[in-house]
Amino acid sequence: MTPSEIESMVVSLAEKARQAALDLATIPTDTKNATLESLAHLLESNVEAILRENNRDMEAGRFNGLSSALLDRLELSPARIAAQAESIRQVADLEDPVGEVIDQSERPNGLRIHRVRVPIGVIGIIYESRPLVTVDCASLCLKSGNASILRGGKEAFYSNTILASLIRAALTANTAPADGVQFIPTPDRLALNALLKQIDNVDCIIPRGGEGLIRFVAENALMPVIKHYKGVCNVYIDRAASAELAQEIVVNAKTQRPGVCNAAENLFMHEAIAPDMLPGIAEALIHKGVELRVDEPSEAILAKTNGLPRNPSTEADYYEEYLDLILSVKIVPDLDRAIEAVNTYGSGHSDAIVTEDEEAARAFLSKVDSAAVYWNASTRFTDGFQFGLGAEIGISTDKLHARGPMGLRELTTYKYLIYGNGQLV
Amino acid sequence: MTPSEIESMVVSLAEKARQAALDLATIPTDTKNATLESLAHLLESNVEAILRENNRDMEAGRFNGLSSALLDRLELSPARIAAQAESIRQVADLEDPVGEVIDQSERPNGLRIHRVRVPIGVIGIIYESRPLVTVDCASLCLKSGNASILRGGKEAFYSNTILASLIRAALTANTAPADGVQFIPTPDRLALNALLKQIDNVDCIIPRGGEGLIRFVAENALMPVIKHYKGVCNVYIDRAASAELAQEIVVNAKTQRPGVCNAAENLFMHEAIAPDMLPGIAEALIHKGVELRVDEPSEAILAKTNGLPRNPSTEADYYEEYLDLILSVKIVPDLDRAIEAVNTYGSGHSDAIVTEDEEAARAFLSKVDSAAVYWNASTRFTDGFQFGLGAEIGISTDKLHARGPMGLRELTTYKYLIYGNGQLV
Repeated sequence: MTPSEIESMVVSLAEKARQAALDLATIPTDTKNATLESLAHLLESNVEAILRENNRDMEAGRFNGLSSALLDRLELSPARIAAQAESIRQVADLEDPVGEVIDQSERPNGLRIHRVRVPIGVIGIIYESRPLVTVDCASLCLKSGNASILRGGKEAFYSNTILASLIRAALTANTAPADGVQFIPTPDRLALNALLKQIDNVDCIIPRGGEGLIRFVAENALMPVIKHYKGVCNVYIDRAASAELAQEIVVNAKTQRPGVCNAAENLFMHEAIAPDMLPGIAEALIHKGVELRVDEPSEAILAKTNGLPRNPSTEADYYEEYLDLILSVKIVPDLDRAIEAVNTYGSGHSDAIVTEDEEAARAFLSKVDSAAVYWNASTRFTDGFQFGLGAEIGISTDKLHARGPMGLRELTTYKYLIYGNGQLV
Repeated sequence: MTPSEIESMVVSLAEKARQAALDLATIPTDTKNATLESLAHLLESNVEAILRENNRDMEAGRFNGLSSALLDRLELSPARIAAQAESIRQVADLEDPVGEVIDQSERPNGLRIHRVRVPIGVIGIIYESRPLVTVDCASLCLKSGNASILRGGKEAFYSNTILASLIRAALTANTAPADGVQFIPTPDRLALNALLKQIDNVDCIIPRGGEGLIRFVAENALMPVIKHYKGVCNVYIDRAASAELAQEIVVNAKTQRPGVCNAAENLFMHEAIAPDMLPGIAEALIHKGVELRVDEPSEAILAKTNGLPRNPSTEADYYEEYLDLILSVKIVPDLDRAIEAVNTYGSGHSDAIVTEDEEAARAFLSKVDSAAVYWNASTRFTDGFQFGLGAEIGISTDKLHARGPMGLRELTTYKYLIYGNGQLV
């Protein structure tokens, strides 16, 4: 396709999504749920065909020298497909958020004003190599009454293409608007650029992926973007912390699954308890394979131990999302400096204080400016399922519209319905 | 100042606002209210000085040939200042939205999760010639715990400068963070450009003003923008409308105050009742000084009357925000076409159906994709005061974060506070 053909294709597909969104906003919950059940069934009954297309992507990926981590994200298996089908059925089981009356009032002039939950409209999802994001995001957008435009990574193009065709088949089989889920049928980068300009037909873009992708989308999109950005999460061990709890929480937050956004990257410790607690915590972390990068006061404490391995930290380390078994450590003189450190180095994602001092905990909870702030628990809980949302399309690190885990509710907006009997201004 | 000095000044001021925002987020309601009371009092006790500075702006404005409409918006009077002081006291009387627990749950593992209302952080307000917007927006941001950065029109520079100094005096007198309200101390356009790039220190921008300003801000800001865009509002008269109600509502929506964003610009009529109702409604509108721009079927009906004046409409007319005594008229064959016309030509602001048919009304309310949809009432009610919000910083025509009138609640976001006792994943 020529550049201008690609642009026309994207414009036409965005216009179709806008039309379909008007229908999707008001179709019955039953139709949405039946479509989701059809999709789950189609995934299960087309495992072989899906794996065949996925294998084309995998072969190309190996040929192109993709890393093993990337190939792992790209690869499908009968178990992964079955789990996705199950997850779609769970979305069908969730309450439909559309139509909820959020609040209502009757004004002195008799006007009755209802604020009602409605779909956002058309949501563009930009993602990378995991093919099942295609069905996952389409399902969540469908259940919340939104049309979606899906743009996956080029390395998953064949897998995504067959998944998109199954989604369309599920919509058609249930007389739901088939144009309500649009898949961009070319891996060409120009199509992404064109999509980010469709301000009249796309209400918002959700980019899911690495820092580079998210920056590119945020800087180039004309419509609002809800960023799912990096998680530089912090644990602060207060002077009044229980040593046992502190060690358990730090080890869990850092090592239970280091490659995810809610894993801890920094450990701040109050100077009064650091000499007592740091050696034990350091030993437990090192035992789990963690590399420690420590500031000078921590170094002075650890130097007195029996040669626990550690490296000196740089200022840049505290801003780093390692997504790996590395932890930066810093000793702080008091609670206020701890809060300042969290707000300075953190990315506003998830932060925890470990303390038995309620006053310290309340100050930390109120002054740390992050989506999720924990008292005596691991940062690893920041997740739509753990928070009871039943599903999640991601974790917003933005402050507007949605913050933290985004479930069906966060995929909606509201409008005011005003019932009158002839009121005039 | 050189361009690079202007940029450094804006950066420094944005950094100060970010620091102050952390304090403002947790100061007591009493401090905020006392500051607002001080500000109201300072306005009242400095009327002469304010008018002197305003006169400098007015003289420059007349010298520069500003339109009389612009000069009217620019001009202050003792009455306008007194009304503003009163309005600030009303903001003090409103409930503080910060700290509200929006919802809470206890998870099976014992984690208690509270979703709590918190300030957004730093809000940039870009506005045009009305000087009192300076104190109005600063008051609303302060009460909702946000720092604000104010950038008014260059024609109001002297008025804004003295108002900003009174705001700072009110903050200082109450030991509230004096840097919590920043005023950009130069009318240079470069300062605006620099402000729109401060993504690390400004959480969102609210532009208030004409279409050109809003487009410029939306296209150039790196941070989220909540647009207060144009209002192409529509009234649809259904086949089951009461003729009397229809006429009252159309006349009110068009003529009660034609220069505001919630005034009607288009009238759509069902073809079954147009021959009966259009002549009377047209006559009432013309009597109020309205110019009618009509489609061919309307023309055919009006041609049979005793020479009511009208002009033919063009397709472009239906997209136009006249803000004047002009109304575009179109006859539609049925309800679905009416809804389609509203969604096509309207700007998603405020739309009304006039009908006695509940089923038609419900279809219109659910399918029209606008911030406020009315049944048998004038579109002119879309306003924070009329909706009972107690105040408004404007009317959002965006769908994300805030839609329709924005009060204190819409100037907040939320965070999750998670109370644990050692929970691990």
